[in-house]
Amino acid sequence: MPADMRAASKPIELRVDLKERSYPIYIGRDILGDGTCLAPYIPGNQVFIVTNETVGPLYLQTLTNALSIVLEPGCQIDEWVIPDGEIHKTLDTYRAVIDALIASRHDRSTTIIALGGGVVGDIAGFVAATYQRGVNFIQIPTTLLAQVDSSVGGKTGVNHTQGKNLIGSFYQPSCVLADIGVLDTLPEREYLAGLAEVIKYGVIADSEFFSWLEDSLAGLRAKLSEVTAEAILRCCRIKASVVARDERETGLRAILNFGHTFGHALEKITRYETYLHGEAVAIGMVLAMQLSRLSLGTSEADVQRLSRLLTNAGLPVKLPEGLDLAEFLNTMSLDKKVHRGCMRFVLVERLGRAQVSDEVDPEAVERVLLSSGLSTHD
Amino acid sequence: MPADMRAASKPIELRVDLKERSYPIYIGRDILGDGTCLAPYIPGNQVFIVTNETVGPLYLQTLTNALSIVLEPGCQIDEWVIPDGEIHKTLDTYRAVIDALIASRHDRSTTIIALGGGVVGDIAGFVAATYQRGVNFIQIPTTLLAQVDSSVGGKTGVNHTQGKNLIGSFYQPSCVLADIGVLDTLPEREYLAGLAEVIKYGVIADSEFFSWLEDSLAGLRAKLSEVTAEAILRCCRIKASVVARDERETGLRAILNFGHTFGHALEKITRYETYLHGEAVAIGMVLAMQLSRLSLGTSEADVQRLSRLLTNAGLPVKLPEGLDLAEFLNTMSLDKKVHRGCMRFVLVERLGRAQVSDEVDPEAVERVLLSSGLSTHD
Repeated sequence: MPADMRAASKPIELRVDLKERSYPIYIGRDILGDGTCLAPYIPGNQVFIVTNETVGPLYLQTLTNALSIVLEPGCQIDEWVIPDGEIHKTLDTYRAVIDALIASRHDRSTTIIALGGGVVGDIAGFVAATYQRGVNFIQIPTTLLAQVDSSVGGKTGVNHTQGKNLIGSFYQPSCVLADIGVLDTLPEREYLAGLAEVIKYGVIADSEFFSWLEDSLAGLRAKLSEVTAEAILRCCRIKASVVARDERETGLRAILNFGHTFGHALEKITRYETYLHGEAVAIGMVLAMQLSRLSLGTSEADVQRLSRLLTNAGLPVKLPEGLDLAEFLNTMSLDKKVHRGCMRFVLVERLGRAQVSDEVDPEAVERVLLSSGLSTHD
Repeated sequence: MPADMRAASKPIELRVDLKERSYPIYIGRDILGDGTCLAPYIPGNQVFIVTNETVGPLYLQTLTNALSIVLEPGCQIDEWVIPDGEIHKTLDTYRAVIDALIASRHDRSTTIIALGGGVVGDIAGFVAATYQRGVNFIQIPTTLLAQVDSSVGGKTGVNHTQGKNLIGSFYQPSCVLADIGVLDTLPEREYLAGLAEVIKYGVIADSEFFSWLEDSLAGLRAKLSEVTAEAILRCCRIKASVVARDERETGLRAILNFGHTFGHALEKITRYETYLHGEAVAIGMVLAMQLSRLSLGTSEADVQRLSRLLTNAGLPVKLPEGLDLAEFLNTMSLDKKVHRGCMRFVLVERLGRAQVSDEVDPEAVERVLLSSGLSTHD
């Protein structure tokens, strides 16, 4: 833990190394209201903030005040508030933001700022990637999930009725600002859902971090600044290192999708109404770990440690009752992680070590789902 | 002229140098029916061809036959035919193509082939750039304009009711195939509109090429294979060299927009019904040349040479009667080439030498428009 974290005024800086698209992530408490962090990353005299109806009332004013102080007088600051929720991550919402940018005459030198969770970041990022073929983009993630996940990697996009993130692009921000102060107003359930992704990083890439999480869980659940900042930093560092080696997800990067093939299908089959993304991923990770056990002989002890940590983090680890096996399998096969007709899974040999496999036996997938309580209706 | 051009069987290859995004352009006669050119650029076992209702009936069968011969048996080849015309270059058409891809279950390893003019290329390219965050893309431009313009540079996108190309991204194809044989079925008017862009390259970057065009115009208008192939090669080479130095249009690349600030406004104000893009650019180039004379003291002789070459190429060089000055100026100011509130123009000091200027005197713009016959209604 760096000493400057306790001072809370000077953020930690983590550099994401992507050659000419490299950018910094600033992590600290209450940095949202300090425009000096952002000012160097706003080259033009127009700013367009995208937020949602939940985050807007809490932090929009703080951000615009901070910007008004540090930017040149006469700088144009516009805002656009989208409805809250994954069901609004659509091409229609995207189009509304584009229309608003055009109506306010934002030109190619504008800066788009995403102030919100993953949905806001994904939509605003896709807008930034495609408005006038790409404009400057800044991310201010306001959920734990977004701070450890969406803020690194450049994935942007919207959902299609047939599946998540089927439309989008890779587009890097010029900077990311992770303010741990905003987590105080985040609903408990959302915070815990973010912990699922935090735990994921330990499982796929760093067993020492996994152990640290087992030890630090109480502090994390209590949102102690130092523990939370340390967790975010370590997650972002892991993700940054993976992304730097495989920006466009041609190989290695896919390990970040651990738990997501099952998780996405679960979210979709329950119409995005029952589970938060992180909750679905928690269940998906346990399923993927069981699949690893069948496919790679991963130890039962590791399966149990993951399941226990997730449970202690207040997360679900079991599929709900009443799901249909055939429907679940069909939904999984529509996921974009399907590669040349084969379903792609991320498997974990042992905690801290993941691999991508296109050769999982479909019967093993069925066995995992059946033993998790899915039924066959025939 | 390389000897192998006359044989017509072996295409010329021009390499566009964009580091890891480099790709070849093949130029030759009747190469569309020879799948061996394309096969190395189709890594997966799914192909999705986007074409339009005009080009489809002429060349789709030839292309699919060629693909069926060289691709592995069982390879999935789907087609999507969009309506012809710039008014269909919309987010709605884009969405329909995306829906079709999803309905046919194309995954991330699919290859999208654009078979058509600029509109097909721009939409299909934007689809390729954003479907599942980017899939493999091949361009087969079937108009002269697309062969010399859209096939190099990676610009993709759709129009918005408020302006052209306001939505899109930069996305490079893995290869481009310019078949000069298809120009035989291109309507004369469209072929001539393509010549406007050919002439543009001489004006902005190569006075020797401009002179060659003056000398070779008869051969070009007669579509002599050797002359046409040579013109396409030289245009692509100029554009490739400009794009290689400025892929994302932060500076130099903007010179390719010579004539386009005026041209886009003219297209829009006449609702894309009166002029083909190249025709509007022809008129726009003459206006931009007159603006260069007022702003940089470009010689009247150069203005006349450009005007004469365009006229001899059967292209319009004068604005139509009855346009309103205020409306024209307002339309220009909405163009995405507006930079930090200033209209951006490409000016030509002398034939072969262009520069970008954000500091054109608005009065000079008005004078050029007024002397071209625009009226003030007040």
